[in-house]
Formats: sequence, structure tokens, C-alpha cells
Amino acid sequence: MPNILVTNDDGITAGGIAALVEVAREFGTVTVVAPDSPQSGQGHAITLKQPLRIKQSQIFTGIDAYECDGTPADCVKMAKHILFKNKKIDLCLSGINHGSNASINIIYSGTMSAAMEASIEGIPSIGFSLDDFSHEADFTASKKVVKALLEKIFSVELQPTLLNVNIPNIHHTEIKGMKVCKQGDGRWKENFQEGTDPHGNKYYWLRGDFHNDDPPKANSDINAIKDGYVSIVPSHHDLTHYASLDTLSYLNS
Amino acid sequence: MPNILVTNDDGITAGGIAALVEVAREFGTVTVVAPDSPQSGQGHAITLKQPLRIKQSQIFTGIDAYECDGTPADCVKMAKHILFKNKKIDLCLSGINHGSNASINIIYSGTMSAAMEASIEGIPSIGFSLDDFSHEADFTASKKVVKALLEKIFSVELQPTLLNVNIPNIHHTEIKGMKVCKQGDGRWKENFQEGTDPHGNKYYWLRGDFHNDDPPKANSDINAIKDGYVSIVPSHHDLTHYASLDTLSYLNS
Repeated sequence: MPNILVTNDDGITAGGIAALVEVAREFGTVTVVAPDSPQSGQGHAITLKQPLRIKQSQIFTGIDAYECDGTPADCVKMAKHILFKNKKIDLCLSGINHGSNASINIIYSGTMSAAMEASIEGIPSIGFSLDDFSHEADFTASKKVVKALLEKIFSVELQPTLLNVNIPNIHHTEIKGMKVCKQGDGRWKENFQEGTDPHGNKYYWLRGDFHNDDPPKANSDINAIKDGYVSIVPSHHDLTHYASLDTLSYLNS
Repeated sequence: MPNILVTNDDGITAGGIAALVEVAREFGTVTVVAPDSPQSGQGHAITLKQPLRIKQSQIFTGIDAYECDGTPADCVKMAKHILFKNKKIDLCLSGINHGSNASINIIYSGTMSAAMEASIEGIPSIGFSLDDFSHEADFTASKKVVKALLEKIFSVELQPTLLNVNIPNIHHTEIKGMKVCKQGDGRWKENFQEGTDPHGNKYYWLRGDFHNDDPPKANSDINAIKDGYVSIVPSHHDLTHYASLDTLSYLNS
């Protein structure tokens, strides 16, 4: 049985991780290491100035589970170097996130950072997200998607790839299929909520609207989801913009 | 005069940002928006659950400066959407970081995330880091490097590129030159410090050693710095691993 590490960024009590554990246990021996509180928007933050703690949890019957007071990336580091010190993690699954991590959201996402942290260690990793931010999101269709994808993944030899999987928020019979595609070109247009706190200090609260900058026919995750497909973006942690190595050669000295 | 936004992750009182401001003001009208406390390792974290505040600072004589209680990425979002609402930011400079952000460190770095946040908005951005983690780091050589690079950058039309610039911790006469190169292949091997807190709870404190996985001749930032060069890695926020789009096509359905 393969060892499957499950984590997320919405915290160990979120509905999305329960759905992921339910499917993952059909495929291997599951260990959960997840944050003890919601960590959305944490990006690839790690905890340097404070120590971390890890506590066994009984939240999932028959599953070895731990809650950690750090970030999603911390959870993976602790799993790898403390719980799995002498044991291999065969696959890391992160999510199911409450909310899309398509396009630029991969940058801000704790869910995807946890998956990336595992993939930096050479562990095949998949981050799953459902395009529904609500706490009460329905993961029925998502569970079928995760199961279908894991069946495919396990039908071949596991590859050390990092996949960003986003699931449209529609009934499972309406999902048209899965599409391997590129990260969509988009950004948030911030529109801070301004106010005054009880102590008379002005504050700004981050909010914004997502803008899709892809052409309508682009093979992007945003377009795939819009068309009713599950998007699968192979991703990596090498941020080099290779095309610029030549054009910037005038900076060499 | 171009509008130059300066930020960092070590906080507005760090020596590195003072050095950067000192050079940047020779090239344009500088505005500083930086965290009010150190934010190392924050990655691309953004603040969603709490409001943000921004406060004018007199720390740099003759420079419009603000401290913000958010992350480095928050600082750039606030600069762009509040202070520069009706004004263009021509260039964003982040740093000078106390410590290298070469190789995988770009992923964890608040300095580089601030620069990336600006680059997502189409703003030419450069993150500078000195390969010396100490609070008392000497930025004399770094200032010469920043000046030389900005002279080159301004000698052509500003491009919307994101540059990760790392400076070796050697005397400026020993710096051999600048090298445009790729992000080094490396990772941290964690080795948590274990202990017991005053309340009897076990804790784990993140620490590790960096391992360079590049071949000795690779044109990587790590090797450039080791050889006495300033490394310049053109970077971007598209994490798609394009080579895998074909090999993973069996997942399409």
C-alpha cells in the first residue's frame, strides 16, 4: 500500500480535507498532517521565528492524523522530517480547497504551496480545489473527480510531478471531462474596503475581483473550468523565465 | 523622473532597505512602502482575515515613506491601489535582503514575493539580496552593484521583467561581474531543533542546511555567486511546467 500524505490550508476540520481523506484511503495508507486553523492566502510562508507543535487528532476514524500550528508548507516539512523520517511518502494530496486555485491564485495558495513543498522533496503531489469558496461547499462531485484522477495516476508509475487540479462547481453529470492545460493569465484587481476601527485608526481590508487576461480560446485552466472541465496544470518550482536569458544578456559583465 | 517603489521583507528599519533607498533616489522619485516588522520567510502570503494599516514614516530624510502592518505582498498591493491609485509605478525595487534568495529560496522569500506582486501588475521589478544573513551586514559592495545594474537597466527602455539579483558577500573589488543565469536546483534539508517549552509541551523549531543539486558547471545562480559573480535570474509567475503538457495528455478525458 502506498503511503499518502494528506494536507490542506483550510485547516483539519474543513469539509474539503474530509472529502479528500475519504477517497485517498481507498488508494493507500493515509496520514494527515494539516493546520489547526485556516491558512488561506498563506502562500509559501514558513515559520522561522517561532517553534512549531504537532498534536495527534482523532478527527478521522482509523486514520493517523495530526494538527500542526504552522503554515501548510510547515505541515509538509514536519511530516517529511519528523513523522516520515524513516519512511517514504509516495504521494502528497492537498485540499480539497474551498475556492479555486486556478491562474494566479496558485501563487497565494497555501494548498498549492503544501503540494509544492512536497514536490520540491521529489514527492509526486496533487493540489485539489473546488471552485466554491463557501464553508458549506458540496464535495460530492469533487470526490468522484479525485477518485477518477487517482485511478489514472496509479495506473502508471507515479511521476514526481506537481499538479494543480481545479474542479468546476457543477453537478458531476455536467462535468465534461479533464483537461491538461496551462496556468491561466489573470490577476486580482484590488479594491480595498476602507474603514475606521474602534480606536479611530483608518484601515484597509483586502478584497478584489479576478480578471481573466486569457484569449477566449486559450488552453488555460480558467477557460477549462468555464467550459465545464476539470483543469490539470502541471506545475513546478523553477521560476526562471528561460526566454529572457538571451534577451537580457546585455546585463552580463 | 521615474516613480520608484521600494519595499523589502526585513522591515522598514533594516540596513538593507536604507542602502537600496540611498541608491534608488539617484534614479527617480522614491516612495517606500515596507513592513513595520521583519517578514522573512513569508513567501507570497497576503492578509485576508484582518484589515491592514499604513502609517507615514520619517525614517528616510526627504523620502515619502510608509510602514504597513502586513506582508511584503500586502505592501505592494497597498502601494499600487492606495498610494499610486492615479500614478504609475515605473519600477519596483525590493530588498536589499539580508540573506541569499538564490535557488529555491525565491519560493520562501518575502523580498521576491513583493517584487513578483509588482511584476504581476506589469511593473518592472527587481529583488536584491546579499548573501549575508546578519543584521549587521555590510552593504557597501551591494550599493555599487545596485547602482551599476540600475544604470544598465535605465540605459534601455524598462521591460516588465522580474529579476532575482543575488550579490556575493565579498569586497566589491573581488566581484567578477554580473551573470544572467537560471534558478539553481537546490533544496533545504530540514533538521528541526526539538525541545520542551516552559509548559511541558514538545516543540520543533525549523532549521536546515542548503543542498545545491546543480552540476558544477551549470549556469545557475548558486554557481555564479560561488564563483564571485552577481547572479541575475529573470523570473516569472507562470508556474506551468510546459514540457509536461504532452507527457500528461493521458489524463485528458
